[in-house]
Amino acid sequence: MVGSLGPNSRKHKVTVVGSGNWGTAIAKIVAENAANSNGIFEEKVEMWVYEEKIEIPETSPHYDASSPLCQGEQNLTDVINKLNENIKYLPGVRLPTNLHANPSLEDAVKDSTILVFNLPHQFILRICDQLKGKILPYARGISCIKGVDVNENGIHLFSETIGKRLGIYCGALSGANIANEVAQEKWSETSIAYDPPHLDSKCPTPHRSPNSSTVDIVEFEHKDTSGQISDVKLQPVPNEYPPVDHALLKRLFHRPYFHASVVNDVAGVSLGGALKNIVALAAGWVDGMGWGDNAKAAVMRVGLLEMVKFGEKFFGATIENRTFTEESAGVADLITSCSGGRNFRCARLSIERNLPVEEIEKTELNGQKLQGTLTAIEVNRFLSKQGLENEFPLFTAVYQILQGKMSVADIPHHLEC
Amino acid sequence: MVGSLGPNSRKHKVTVVGSGNWGTAIAKIVAENAANSNGIFEEKVEMWVYEEKIEIPETSPHYDASSPLCQGEQNLTDVINKLNENIKYLPGVRLPTNLHANPSLEDAVKDSTILVFNLPHQFILRICDQLKGKILPYARGISCIKGVDVNENGIHLFSETIGKRLGIYCGALSGANIANEVAQEKWSETSIAYDPPHLDSKCPTPHRSPNSSTVDIVEFEHKDTSGQISDVKLQPVPNEYPPVDHALLKRLFHRPYFHASVVNDVAGVSLGGALKNIVALAAGWVDGMGWGDNAKAAVMRVGLLEMVKFGEKFFGATIENRTFTEESAGVADLITSCSGGRNFRCARLSIERNLPVEEIEKTELNGQKLQGTLTAIEVNRFLSKQGLENEFPLFTAVYQILQGKMSVADIPHHLEC
Repeated sequence: MVGSLGPNSRKHKVTVVGSGNWGTAIAKIVAENAANSNGIFEEKVEMWVYEEKIEIPETSPHYDASSPLCQGEQNLTDVINKLNENIKYLPGVRLPTNLHANPSLEDAVKDSTILVFNLPHQFILRICDQLKGKILPYARGISCIKGVDVNENGIHLFSETIGKRLGIYCGALSGANIANEVAQEKWSETSIAYDPPHLDSKCPTPHRSPNSSTVDIVEFEHKDTSGQISDVKLQPVPNEYPPVDHALLKRLFHRPYFHASVVNDVAGVSLGGALKNIVALAAGWVDGMGWGDNAKAAVMRVGLLEMVKFGEKFFGATIENRTFTEESAGVADLITSCSGGRNFRCARLSIERNLPVEEIEKTELNGQKLQGTLTAIEVNRFLSKQGLENEFPLFTAVYQILQGKMSVADIPHHLEC
Repeated sequence: MVGSLGPNSRKHKVTVVGSGNWGTAIAKIVAENAANSNGIFEEKVEMWVYEEKIEIPETSPHYDASSPLCQGEQNLTDVINKLNENIKYLPGVRLPTNLHANPSLEDAVKDSTILVFNLPHQFILRICDQLKGKILPYARGISCIKGVDVNENGIHLFSETIGKRLGIYCGALSGANIANEVAQEKWSETSIAYDPPHLDSKCPTPHRSPNSSTVDIVEFEHKDTSGQISDVKLQPVPNEYPPVDHALLKRLFHRPYFHASVVNDVAGVSLGGALKNIVALAAGWVDGMGWGDNAKAAVMRVGLLEMVKFGEKFFGATIENRTFTEESAGVADLITSCSGGRNFRCARLSIERNLPVEEIEKTELNGQKLQGTLTAIEVNRFLSKQGLENEFPLFTAVYQILQGKMSVADIPHHLEC
């Protein structure tokens, strides 16, 4: 092959959109792998940072009265780039020098072929609107945003929302991953789901002429559970780039301390991260009752089965049971969340203090909201509209308890069959 | 139907063989259900007790200086029957009055159609030899004995060993069941596996004439992984009795506080209770290292997958993956064992105190042995004889660590793929 248009003559540029503690932890991983990629990825990885002003406090290990960085307010991006540390959202963790904090969204994503989305879900639509027209039309996305968007009318995966808004394909990453533990390189696992239409396969498709950089346009369908179908014109990744496939995503995300498994089941990986929070509330209540480890394991097992059933019922065509029962994004994330996650802890405290969960939420979470209570209510609205509450007795029990219509002591009877 | 030989004109007599804390807890459950069975079971349930002498101490709530029961040594069975409490092995738990402690094995099993085996596994062979010729030839068994018998040459289920020795069919019961919690009626779940050859089905088989009490003899095959096939002549349960099927076993074992699920997969239910102890050691080590909840969930997930793989490889014809990933005897028992079970606790202590597990075992367990270390060694012998150690990296890592040939810090690298 000759010239810059030959296969694999170009490297993937990777941008992480978001820089909270989880965003920064993932950017660290991606930059570490890009630095040792043997020409697959550009070494420099961009991380878009919502710019804010910060001051380095005198108590910080980075404080140096003589440094210009310590003279009053500074841009967060400047501080990150100079110190190689996100002292605001991931303090104490050294970042690779090839990770560049960029305050300009447009500049950060320019020419990027791989976009990693890792920001609070309430910002997705706004950010996508800002990204429209600014990204490569053949870029690929990975959403690290936990959970799904559920309402009466349907369940929407954040990865799908991003994909539709931007006209690109977007997969998902989820697992038993507490951001600070991952950042400290404590061993964990994750699941990456990626299953685009067969445009990017190594075998050339009829739509693609292998030696041309011309981008063919192929239509594929996004079908969500609301029955809504939107046609997105998906463009194949030009073949000058290494193919964006499972092996490439493993190279981008797998680390010795962060074991990544790459699967096809985007819906399963995304749903696991949402539904487990409902189960964690139930596990916290049962634990608070002092019923012991048997009972806690029982409620987790029943919850896992309802997750499987929910997936089968509403994403039957695409979901695989084994995602819930065998993947990090399923059973392992459930176990972690029922060990010490905030939904579990607040539910347990609510029994110990004999207060409703929302009271605990107010006193314990500094104004933040529990994901589990929101998801339990949303999922219940969706199920009850379809008359399916009885088929999910644990999810329904959690909702009823949150509404004060059932007591925790009734859980075993409610689950009896 | 007319006369005493008509369908369902006879009731099942149930005997529990064994009276430790788990044996007594199960006997309590069975007797509670027999007392309310609407004619399916004899009300009186027998529990065979290895007779011993005990003295009621003055500190006991049952002590009454004027009672003949408190004048020196008494038979344990007399004490159980008079106080309705097994003060030696399950103190503080009231037993149903229709449960009869019986010191005579022969008398306890006489005319019993359902035998529930619940005693330490090292006594099985001896007890079976004593039972030979003393039980009904068409009795059915349920083994509550945890684990399996593994050696270099094969894996033998205790239920199979009992069945072969006695010439009867024997199923298995296992789950996330800590005996004392079950006895205190704290909610838990269990799995019962029962899958006899089609002799007992409601549809008459060619071997069985529906209106006769004649017992036809049919041969069925027990095939274990050693390749050894033994022919057992299995006799159908006469049709004067209600059929011994999944529904009947649910009536016998299910309680509002003890939810029983009845499945076919005897090998899966039995293997789960053995292999989870290997995983619990790894979880304890990882927890002891302070690697956090992500890492503990990861090692449990990998362990669960190796349990599935082990089942598929060696019991492929009969085992169902979902037993491990969805049943109480699988994932829930694994979760319980990795929360506070003794294998988990001793492994964690071994890291915290920087001592080998066998040292912790000596100081913490009053001379008892950890099941996990025995099983890890037995399973390793079996795997290594077949050259399959590399296919089970976690099981192999646990063995290597126990042998001092690998360090816990190497677990993540060892599991990397």
